[in-house]
Amino acid sequence: MSGLSTATVTRLPRYLRLLEEMPRETVSSEELAGAAGVTAANARRDLAALGFQGIRGVGYLTTELRDRIRKELGIETRRRVGIVGAGNLGTALARYTGLSKRGFDVAVIYDVHPGRVGQRIGDLTIRHLDDMTADLEKGVFDMAILAVPAGSAQKVADALVEAGVASILNFAPTRVSVPKSVAMRQVDLSNELQILSYYG
Amino acid sequence: MSGLSTATVTRLPRYLRLLEEMPRETVSSEELAGAAGVTAANARRDLAALGFQGIRGVGYLTTELRDRIRKELGIETRRRVGIVGAGNLGTALARYTGLSKRGFDVAVIYDVHPGRVGQRIGDLTIRHLDDMTADLEKGVFDMAILAVPAGSAQKVADALVEAGVASILNFAPTRVSVPKSVAMRQVDLSNELQILSYYG
Repeated sequence: MSGLSTATVTRLPRYLRLLEEMPRETVSSEELAGAAGVTAANARRDLAALGFQGIRGVGYLTTELRDRIRKELGIETRRRVGIVGAGNLGTALARYTGLSKRGFDVAVIYDVHPGRVGQRIGDLTIRHLDDMTADLEKGVFDMAILAVPAGSAQKVADALVEAGVASILNFAPTRVSVPKSVAMRQVDLSNELQILSYYG
Repeated sequence: MSGLSTATVTRLPRYLRLLEEMPRETVSSEELAGAAGVTAANARRDLAALGFQGIRGVGYLTTELRDRIRKELGIETRRRVGIVGAGNLGTALARYTGLSKRGFDVAVIYDVHPGRVGQRIGDLTIRHLDDMTADLEKGVFDMAILAVPAGSAQKVADALVEAGVASILNFAPTRVSVPKSVAMRQVDLSNELQILSYYG
């Protein structure tokens, strides 16, 4: 991990998506800026932080920049994701078609309800949460998505941290604490709606 | 809408959540900064843009700042949300407990599948998408959440725009275009995972 600012890191996936869809050999800082919703100067500064200088009147080389961003994000190889919680949300996330084409494989999904464990979601069979620690040690997955009710979120996060997970994406509508050594982000639907309320 | 920067607007819900949970009459810029993941100087600048100056050694008045942010975000009164798509994701979102306590009521959910229309999710009965335009005109909802497959997202967004929706939160794993007059945000799970990959 280099010392990029959080704001820059947050924009890299948006540049990457454009680069992956770009049919041309070069891309302008204006196009990249548009994809990330920032000014062209911002985009140029972000890419300069990765050691990339655009060529005046030409822009950036698409493939080179794409590979560099993938490397920086640590997704040159595919990442294996485990989902905890096989309710409506966990099931929806397991079926979410946007993950596979962006470098992530849902390797496993867990629940604790006897009525769910053993059921299938697409190619996956729902496993009992008790198997999670052994699976993590075997390298079945290394990133976790929390799709459990608010009341269980901290307990499940603690178990994931204890078992050595590298990073957690929290969908539960509650704040969860993890040690600094574990990366965590929260997808907070109400925050998104509040931001939208400002604009419309 | 005042002329706040996108970055500032994006942080307001995080300050607000802290203010809503804060048991004390005052809150420091350090506490606010911690909630939003920025520096205290950033937080002070954000609040100065709202016309708030902290008091040295005291901080900000919790209730006053909370009410000001709610007003700025346009959520002094509750907002009514319509969900389009009653599959796993739409159902999960309709049941998401984090919305109601942050000022949003899911007023209606739509689908087109005969097997779903008429079914119940909690207190809601799934309505046919054909009813959407009339509902929007009657003020049943004014913000929409897109929880449809990628292949239908643009078509449904076009129908919502045509019917006069104010803002759209897009969960479909695809980019959707709307006119500038409509506010839109995309929750992109793969972007979140890519950001996490950088850190862990």
